[in-house]
Amino acid sequence: MIFKGLEGVKVCKTSICYMDGSNGRLFYRGIPVETLADKSSFEEVAYLLWYGKLPTKSQLEEFKSKFSRNRDLSPESLEILFKLPKNLHYVDVLKIFLSIHGSVDNSEEDLQEKAIKIASVFPTILAYYYRYSNDLELIPPREDLPHIENFYHMVFGERDGYLRALESAFILLMEQDLNASTFTALVIGSTLSDLYSCIVGALGALRGPLHGGACEKVPPMLEEIGSEDKVEEYVQRCLAEKKKIMGFGHRIYKTYDPRAVYLRDTIQRLFPDNKLFKIAKRLEEYIVGNRIKNIYPNVDLYSSIFFEAMGFPRNMFTALFAMARVVGWTAHVIEYVSDNKLIRPESEYVGPIGVDYIPIERRDEDGKDSH
Amino acid sequence: MIFKGLEGVKVCKTSICYMDGSNGRLFYRGIPVETLADKSSFEEVAYLLWYGKLPTKSQLEEFKSKFSRNRDLSPESLEILFKLPKNLHYVDVLKIFLSIHGSVDNSEEDLQEKAIKIASVFPTILAYYYRYSNDLELIPPREDLPHIENFYHMVFGERDGYLRALESAFILLMEQDLNASTFTALVIGSTLSDLYSCIVGALGALRGPLHGGACEKVPPMLEEIGSEDKVEEYVQRCLAEKKKIMGFGHRIYKTYDPRAVYLRDTIQRLFPDNKLFKIAKRLEEYIVGNRIKNIYPNVDLYSSIFFEAMGFPRNMFTALFAMARVVGWTAHVIEYVSDNKLIRPESEYVGPIGVDYIPIERRDEDGKDSH
Repeated sequence: MIFKGLEGVKVCKTSICYMDGSNGRLFYRGIPVETLADKSSFEEVAYLLWYGKLPTKSQLEEFKSKFSRNRDLSPESLEILFKLPKNLHYVDVLKIFLSIHGSVDNSEEDLQEKAIKIASVFPTILAYYYRYSNDLELIPPREDLPHIENFYHMVFGERDGYLRALESAFILLMEQDLNASTFTALVIGSTLSDLYSCIVGALGALRGPLHGGACEKVPPMLEEIGSEDKVEEYVQRCLAEKKKIMGFGHRIYKTYDPRAVYLRDTIQRLFPDNKLFKIAKRLEEYIVGNRIKNIYPNVDLYSSIFFEAMGFPRNMFTALFAMARVVGWTAHVIEYVSDNKLIRPESEYVGPIGVDYIPIERRDEDGKDSH
Repeated sequence: MIFKGLEGVKVCKTSICYMDGSNGRLFYRGIPVETLADKSSFEEVAYLLWYGKLPTKSQLEEFKSKFSRNRDLSPESLEILFKLPKNLHYVDVLKIFLSIHGSVDNSEEDLQEKAIKIASVFPTILAYYYRYSNDLELIPPREDLPHIENFYHMVFGERDGYLRALESAFILLMEQDLNASTFTALVIGSTLSDLYSCIVGALGALRGPLHGGACEKVPPMLEEIGSEDKVEEYVQRCLAEKKKIMGFGHRIYKTYDPRAVYLRDTIQRLFPDNKLFKIAKRLEEYIVGNRIKNIYPNVDLYSSIFFEAMGFPRNMFTALFAMARVVGWTAHVIEYVSDNKLIRPESEYVGPIGVDYIPIERRDEDGKDSH
């Protein structure tokens, strides 16, 4: 029996996150994600996911100070930044710097400490590359600001955007059980490789258009549709051409993705007149209303519109997703390796066995060789 | 039911490689690996693995010329090379440059063409970093030399080492079905991410000490043992302390790893008096002879000794492994995505559901919070 795509195959126990796919619910350590998005902070939810419970006041203070102390890039990394081509994808920029950091960080500290270091430096890498590649002066990280506010400040040089909504969005994106990028991190972690390598691998998976990369494909799709009255025609054309509609469908959620619902409501409140948002809502109405392929909007549909409305460039969307998800990735690696077993599946061999090695002068030039 | 480590779980069909674990046999596209190691070339086996059959003379010529045309680093990458710290791990150096290349390579060519580009540039990255970090002048790649000879020349500035034996070693290491690094590449590839991302992820997995990273741990272990007469004492101590003996044991091979046998014979022929080799042979005799834990030497035991005897630095061993295995990684991604399904397993949630979010001022400072 072949478990293609490992659909429904359970690879481990976890107490990090529960996804109720039939009812469209998501819980971090048992707490509904909407509650955390409403009330909590990036740092507090990271603490919850890594350590299994909400921090007390003094724990949170100590934790936040660790988080803010690891924001700087080394002088060596800064020199490399200024040599990078300006047209790289932000996810690749993350991979480059995390590979460098991982190689020079040989400290024996525990994985939680490494996870803090890694999550902490994401905003700096993204903001620095944004400003460098747009020929803007770099804004150094500020230790006195919380994670999200510091990030926003480093990118835009301002602190008065919709910061609460941005923080909520990051909280929603932080964790989602064994999706393809988290599973990538687990497979790498199961070899007892370093945590940086796990994250660099996960970044590569997140980038794929069947995973987080979808969020960068949504705005161009909505622009291609052009206006609300073209939605039906577009959907019908996709169906006829068997083309995937970006921002819809999910392996686990067989109803509304709760993150999509939350973000849709956020955009409705803050950017109700956004043109792409109107097209997206109409698309949702049409597809869900007509039960087309039984798919529902997923998080990418609205996260992309939200990030765009907040002023972030499109080729940063997947990296923004990663800036949140790095918490879930690291939490799962930490949990898995605490009771580790190398992840090494098998395949079913369907080729020949015992084929002769025919010397090259006897191989037919017309391609009809003897095996 | 939980399939921890996915042991015995088949995730896809394949016709690339067959591992007969009980009899210690390995076949690439049906041909015994020993035959290929004896008679074939790196390029020819890469062709076999990627395209499914041995090339004709004209096919091989065209293929070799493609292979040799993609060796250069861009001027931008060279500038970055000269800014890198000199103490990076070679695997991380590969990750850095492949992330850059992947980000600037937006060509729409097919995956086979990308695979050639990627495999072709590995030797250049390794040789350049070797010479740069050892303050030696770089030796540019030569289009007129075959893959392995060019690599050896770029590293050592010579062409008269045991090149045939080196090529055989690389052929042995090229492919090994769904080991953890190849599976990492598949998971990433299944999101339809780019091929460079698949390889960068696989590199991270290969580096783990439960996978390819083991080869860098073997020589220090043999040095720790010190001499042949200390072998028994060392093994008994490992057993008592439940410590893993590096270079022994395999998830699939339950007898001799055919690659270990081949490499042991090679070393016996070329470097019979190598001190670490003598300890390794004695270790093998003792462990296999006394049926200790029913483990057998795996490829890492002898590949590490071979690479060291050939003059390569220890922290390059995993990267050398990768320089071969990149062919298998890319072959599997190409095969899998031709009939793709997103790899997305599940977990069994064992935590609580519906936990209250307790405001921070009501959380107990002594850590006994209410959930």
